[in-house]
Amino acid sequence: MGVGLNAFLRLRTIVTSTQAVVLLSGGLDSSTALAMTLKEGRDVHTLTIDYGQRHAKELEAARKVAKHFRASSHKVLTIDLREVGGSALTDAKVEVPQQRTLEEISGGIPVTYVPARNTIFLGLALGYAESMGADEIVVGANAVDYSGYPDCRPEFYRAFQEVARLGTKRGVEGRPIRVMTPLISMSKADIVRKGEELGVPWKLTWSCYLGGERACGACDSCQLRLKGFREAGLRDPLPYRRRAQTL
Amino acid sequence: MGVGLNAFLRLRTIVTSTQAVVLLSGGLDSSTALAMTLKEGRDVHTLTIDYGQRHAKELEAARKVAKHFRASSHKVLTIDLREVGGSALTDAKVEVPQQRTLEEISGGIPVTYVPARNTIFLGLALGYAESMGADEIVVGANAVDYSGYPDCRPEFYRAFQEVARLGTKRGVEGRPIRVMTPLISMSKADIVRKGEELGVPWKLTWSCYLGGERACGACDSCQLRLKGFREAGLRDPLPYRRRAQTL
Repeated sequence: MGVGLNAFLRLRTIVTSTQAVVLLSGGLDSSTALAMTLKEGRDVHTLTIDYGQRHAKELEAARKVAKHFRASSHKVLTIDLREVGGSALTDAKVEVPQQRTLEEISGGIPVTYVPARNTIFLGLALGYAESMGADEIVVGANAVDYSGYPDCRPEFYRAFQEVARLGTKRGVEGRPIRVMTPLISMSKADIVRKGEELGVPWKLTWSCYLGGERACGACDSCQLRLKGFREAGLRDPLPYRRRAQTL
Repeated sequence: MGVGLNAFLRLRTIVTSTQAVVLLSGGLDSSTALAMTLKEGRDVHTLTIDYGQRHAKELEAARKVAKHFRASSHKVLTIDLREVGGSALTDAKVEVPQQRTLEEISGGIPVTYVPARNTIFLGLALGYAESMGADEIVVGANAVDYSGYPDCRPEFYRAFQEVARLGTKRGVEGRPIRVMTPLISMSKADIVRKGEELGVPWKLTWSCYLGGERACGACDSCQLRLKGFREAGLRDPLPYRRRAQTL
């Protein structure tokens, strides 16, 4: 009887739990956002966008991280943003900046900015969530130790929440899909601490913009990641070509 | 001298004119929006999304309409929304409703609704516009004689304008890309009259959801189109399988 009741309760949790679509790039932030969403008891479906990024290695990282956390499903959507253009992240001819200082990183929008990337990704996540009946989309954006991208700021996500409310069937029915940004006011060190606590498999993640055999340790993404680990008092287990930190 | 001055003025117009990205599906509405944007003196770049629609015939229509109007460029982006799911327009297994009355059409969101489609399309148009340095994105949405899609309403476009302002480099720099909806408060008859006046080549356009050899005349899109022509006192030159209007 006791076992039957437990099984029933477990089934009930699965059946009634909120479904969330987590945008998973395979990096430090989205992997931690995924772990936090699971911790909240959500039934999690991961969504990764193959957009022609030069660091395609992150697609493999996302798959591994989703598998590690036993996401209920893992989906990859393809949209070639090289066709849209305008970014060092999708154009091998534009150089990715190296060894920039924090002042330089926070001093403006870098060439690695991909025009409207997060708007496009949120749109895809919104459509996917509505199609599968999920209640939330989760994105690991953070506005503290970030690279100056406009689409990582809280006001952008508030505006997108309105788009989600007004532009979907779910919104019209009074049950808008929620746009969740659990990391938005966390520093990189906070994120590393939280991820460590929740067992994020750092070795499986990938953040470097260059996508080489080892992380370069010098692009903005590597620099911010290393700064986060250092400030959290932890060592990033990823292999780096060099760890010559400027931050 | 006179000829030289004219040539100079013409060149000056081309060089200084506002650039617009027009989302062109190849249907009646977007083709008219394109003609109106050209009439405004914009330098027009057309953008068509190949999203796995069952009526892929509209892609060819868009190309022909763009060519007819000598758009400065015509771009096709591919995103397979069949992977996202949830719509009769991308799923051949779901039947497209036929011969519905106006009450039925305006009575709710139909199965041809594609989750978050216009959010995704606007996101792509926004990225493309920012990447190429255009100042406007133009979309032929209209909220009067429409199919009940939530993402055709003016409040949705106002919300997306905020996303465009907050989520792009252009917005941060104080020069947000404008979201233009020139047809938003026009009836289908108004649109047909305006398109006729501006020389829209109706024969090249395509609206039918089924994408057969001839338009079906019975899906919501055909019905609304035929109603527009009838109320404008014009005859649609497209070949139809039948013109048994219920509206």
